[in-house]
Amino acid sequence: VSLKENAPAAAHFALADWGTTHLRVWLTDETGHVLGVDESANGMGALKPEQFAGVLEATLNRMGARSDVPVMICGMAGARQGWREAPYADCPIALTELPARAIGFGSHGRAVAIMPGVARRDLARPDVMRGEETQLLGLAIGFGLANGIACMPGTHSKWVRVADGRIADFATAMTGELYAMLTQHSILRHATAASDGGRKPVSGSDPVFLAHVSHALDESGGLARLFSVRAGSLLNGARAEDGRAALSGLLIGAELRGLATLIGARPGPIMIVGSGSLASLYQAALQMAGFQPEICRGEDAVRAGLLAAARLHFTRETTAAKRAAP
Amino acid sequence: VSLKENAPAAAHFALADWGTTHLRVWLTDETGHVLGVDESANGMGALKPEQFAGVLEATLNRMGARSDVPVMICGMAGARQGWREAPYADCPIALTELPARAIGFGSHGRAVAIMPGVARRDLARPDVMRGEETQLLGLAIGFGLANGIACMPGTHSKWVRVADGRIADFATAMTGELYAMLTQHSILRHATAASDGGRKPVSGSDPVFLAHVSHALDESGGLARLFSVRAGSLLNGARAEDGRAALSGLLIGAELRGLATLIGARPGPIMIVGSGSLASLYQAALQMAGFQPEICRGEDAVRAGLLAAARLHFTRETTAAKRAAP
Repeated sequence: VSLKENAPAAAHFALADWGTTHLRVWLTDETGHVLGVDESANGMGALKPEQFAGVLEATLNRMGARSDVPVMICGMAGARQGWREAPYADCPIALTELPARAIGFGSHGRAVAIMPGVARRDLARPDVMRGEETQLLGLAIGFGLANGIACMPGTHSKWVRVADGRIADFATAMTGELYAMLTQHSILRHATAASDGGRKPVSGSDPVFLAHVSHALDESGGLARLFSVRAGSLLNGARAEDGRAALSGLLIGAELRGLATLIGARPGPIMIVGSGSLASLYQAALQMAGFQPEICRGEDAVRAGLLAAARLHFTRETTAAKRAAP
Repeated sequence: VSLKENAPAAAHFALADWGTTHLRVWLTDETGHVLGVDESANGMGALKPEQFAGVLEATLNRMGARSDVPVMICGMAGARQGWREAPYADCPIALTELPARAIGFGSHGRAVAIMPGVARRDLARPDVMRGEETQLLGLAIGFGLANGIACMPGTHSKWVRVADGRIADFATAMTGELYAMLTQHSILRHATAASDGGRKPVSGSDPVFLAHVSHALDESGGLARLFSVRAGSLLNGARAEDGRAALSGLLIGAELRGLATLIGARPGPIMIVGSGSLASLYQAALQMAGFQPEICRGEDAVRAGLLAAARLHFTRETTAAKRAAP
């Protein structure tokens, strides 16, 4: 899908969110105004390393970008199995330092840079992120989150403590993947299967969801309660819709409880990066835990982060090049 | 596999542990001395309801049991999708009351009874067991556990608080199934895959296992640490063997922590019902949590329970029949 607006030829930056399953490219002017967008399924998972350059150039040509527009990329394209490995920066790190760590190179004659991921090099709890660091830069520069907690729900939810514009600490919870596995492969699949064909997403106002968030928040036994979803179906004939709400509540509640140390008692602002029903579930769960989170769309956060990164990285490069000139 | 000893014709009871994947039958004399054993893969999962009677009779004939030997059965044969449904008894319940709740019927001219499961009918945390109740009866009568905690690890671990010979409370943890799913289907599969072909079981003395039990016991963040198994492989090149030990430690540690309320601070004796490496992992984890568990083989517990159940059920029946006789 390519959306061309009136002046792609005036584009100053190309910004690319290049994940495992998707590629999204924006053309913007110098101020970040969007001149064109292109989305495709050309994610890292579908490409060999030698295919990235061609896919990017074809996309930019389709969008009408001039051949000298530089490209800032974040996400799995920078993983070891991606286009070029952009090594992890070590946490803690200032968000505005990250663009300087982006790896720059030329491709089809244009300047390309890939943002680094961030690593928590702790032997007791190592962790990594790749892509979220750019959203965090966007939250800090575009949405005022220089101190607080970013809650980034998904297959692997990231929770990040930001302090004075730095990634102070972060943790990954495999909540989305656990939910998918438990509903597809475990004994809970019967109690959570969609018998009605469609799968209505769980709602953050569902009393079954809220009750199970509460159960998991009240005790450290979130894991020990999972089987109650099966037993509730056996003993009480609980509906699959309620099974999904219960499972979702238990997992998200256990996630919150497990992250109590990272979040802290007075975390400052909490920003959920996401949209739709998943964001509303985390909003409801965080409210139940006594917080007042705000929501920022993931797409908005990553675009703001890529724009900030492009400005910092390419401006510095240009300045350096000018200085180096005789 | 059928093991005939010298006097199957003198058998007084047939005792059958009939689970989802296996059928194990013992012939014993009146005192419980084993006269023969037969094990097969004729579990509930492989049989239609109308096949159970024939499979049992063929097994008993193969073992040389007389046609008047009564049979006490426990396990999934009593589930709704098994041979005949033996309805759940409600928790709390005295263990010695359970045999009276067994459903009795005739099959090929012999008396057969199937032990009931036990249900925890609590809307906030419903739970069920089927088969473990018979092991608990065996622990109480044959191994002196009338007060304390039974830890029954497996695909779905059961933890049971026994007080004055009653099932006072219990909970199911899906730890074994979570471990299997995470090592087979999740992003952790790479970090836990056996590259050497064989899968050496995790050992309870493995320092990586113990460190991760400790992490999970020290905080409620067991779930929030799962991803560290992946990150440890990415960042530190952790071996798959260590990945399995870490995952096993995190899950068992989180299980223990999640069951803190059920176990209590002064639980009395703790008996692990199991054998081999799994029992040794739970033993090590419980020791780390400050307890001194003992171990009883699951096979010994279920046989002792079936024997006690057969005595209580069939003797009562015989007595009742004699009383009813003119």
